[in-house]
Amino acid sequence: MITECPVPRAETERVLLGHGAGGRLTAELLEHTVLPAFGGQEGPLEDASLLPGSKELVMSTDGFVVSPLFFPGGDIGSLAVHGTVNDLAMRGAEPVALSVALIVEEGLELGQLEAVMRSLGKAAQEAGVPVVTGDTKVVGRGAADKVFITTTGVGKLLPGLAVSAANARPGDAVLLSGPIGLHGTAVLSTREGLGFEADIASDTRPLHRLVAALAPLADRLHVLRDPTRGGLAAALNEIARDSRLAVDIDERAVPVPEPVAAACDILGLDPLHVANEGCMVAFVAPDAADEALASMRSLPEGSGAVRIGDVLPADGRPGRVTMRTAVGARRVVDMPLGELLPRIC
Amino acid sequence: MITECPVPRAETERVLLGHGAGGRLTAELLEHTVLPAFGGQEGPLEDASLLPGSKELVMSTDGFVVSPLFFPGGDIGSLAVHGTVNDLAMRGAEPVALSVALIVEEGLELGQLEAVMRSLGKAAQEAGVPVVTGDTKVVGRGAADKVFITTTGVGKLLPGLAVSAANARPGDAVLLSGPIGLHGTAVLSTREGLGFEADIASDTRPLHRLVAALAPLADRLHVLRDPTRGGLAAALNEIARDSRLAVDIDERAVPVPEPVAAACDILGLDPLHVANEGCMVAFVAPDAADEALASMRSLPEGSGAVRIGDVLPADGRPGRVTMRTAVGARRVVDMPLGELLPRIC
Repeated sequence: MITECPVPRAETERVLLGHGAGGRLTAELLEHTVLPAFGGQEGPLEDASLLPGSKELVMSTDGFVVSPLFFPGGDIGSLAVHGTVNDLAMRGAEPVALSVALIVEEGLELGQLEAVMRSLGKAAQEAGVPVVTGDTKVVGRGAADKVFITTTGVGKLLPGLAVSAANARPGDAVLLSGPIGLHGTAVLSTREGLGFEADIASDTRPLHRLVAALAPLADRLHVLRDPTRGGLAAALNEIARDSRLAVDIDERAVPVPEPVAAACDILGLDPLHVANEGCMVAFVAPDAADEALASMRSLPEGSGAVRIGDVLPADGRPGRVTMRTAVGARRVVDMPLGELLPRIC
Repeated sequence: MITECPVPRAETERVLLGHGAGGRLTAELLEHTVLPAFGGQEGPLEDASLLPGSKELVMSTDGFVVSPLFFPGGDIGSLAVHGTVNDLAMRGAEPVALSVALIVEEGLELGQLEAVMRSLGKAAQEAGVPVVTGDTKVVGRGAADKVFITTTGVGKLLPGLAVSAANARPGDAVLLSGPIGLHGTAVLSTREGLGFEADIASDTRPLHRLVAALAPLADRLHVLRDPTRGGLAAALNEIARDSRLAVDIDERAVPVPEPVAAACDILGLDPLHVANEGCMVAFVAPDAADEALASMRSLPEGSGAVRIGDVLPADGRPGRVTMRTAVGARRVVDMPLGELLPRIC
């Protein structure tokens, strides 16, 4: 049963935290407030867009506002590199150049800013992408929270790939490169001092080498998406919506680490809604599934790759995502409505 | 007399508003905190950088944090387009594509956000550059101030131009495309309710067509720079520093509108230090000065173009900027030290 729950009118008059959470409110904000200013958006919303006049260069931008700045497994600096490298990678591109724009709060310790910048520089170097330009603004105390980083990337499409969220086909195998829920629970646990941070580290990492490993699949690779804000549920819903098909996954196949499951249980969160920063879903033609899994598993960042489900014909309900649960029932996997975990990236 | 005034040690331990003002503190922050993370910066700091592997595509990024969001002559949306288009233009490039990343404070009226986005879309359309990708983050109340916008642009170098802040030559004519001080005083007057906002409007506008009009000068056009943060004084000091030459301007030739002069007088500001968003300096070979002025004056945005000075040999003092004052004396035009007008762009 899929029922559209309309957002009450009063809620639409001011920006809510949920407008930035990657769920249904975010889609509404984009549709009603942001995109009309640009003459509307044609086609599916992708993480990166082709430069006009170019057949191989794509561009992507992402703002990072994570709190706290430092968390197990990473910090806002490394995250700002990985997030944009991955947005390019999900379009099938390798990173060519990054820009970095800082908005810094007056009073931030210079030592903290230096640590963030060192981490950002190291992450860029490890990903093999140069930071070519930047900008720094300072605002007064209380006008920002420590530091926000916007990274923009230009990438070059890998030849032979044509991935898109609108490109899923009935029968496709749905693959997942690794365990889910680590980033969101690591940040939340650190911020709130919940104690899970000893057992959970963010999965933040660049994914472009994993995509390059899949490049030999060529046109048998249909969709790539990293389940960041809104988690695996949002990623699958967006793909199902843009491809006008149904997606069905198997709960037992989705790798949820034990500490993540424990944290989600206590916090009342669904691991499918928790943000990730170092795994991706790949939709591939059924005859390419084994080859794709082997390619992903050949790299450390894909060592836990698994097949979690299949694409089904829309059957009158395009955009539907369902899950066969561990007890054998089938439930709808909804798009998260609003804010589950604010400032997670 | 040029004496380096070292910043006291205690001031270097936390980020100050002045670190974002475009003056000497900004240069220090870049040199000591930001750039070391990227293996140091080679060559002069330009507003836009070449993409690796490309001979014609450049990239630039800029964060906009202006307060208030709306001011006479513009708003944060139009400013975010003009600022990045102009950063590309100052490198001798026409804009190809923009990305837009929003950081929005929870509670902002959606109507205000819509107005900003409409203005941004209109400015992009008027500048002839498409917005190809974007991102929206929302942070809690008090964690940002209404909305910050980071725009990143990719531009294509105009053929035959090779402008750089390091490219000034002795004898060059120093041209200025129009009056100075309008943007900074318009924003400040609006923010503080000083009453000048009835007479002063920001000069925010795109400058790429003005640069295109200068393109026929080819290698006789040496330097382009828009005097934004830190004003004309900072722009000339940066050029003199990077070119290791001296610059001498004539105070009587620098166009300062009467209301700007009055506002600066009351506020104790030097108009040379006030930010602009719609004028530029061009350094051209002496035999190209008349042609360049005629080309600039053929466009509305260059109708007030004037010659304000000359480049002199370093003469043992590279980086020195001097001004012949209206009363016939000669004074040093210093780089502004720190924060004159916070959050002006």
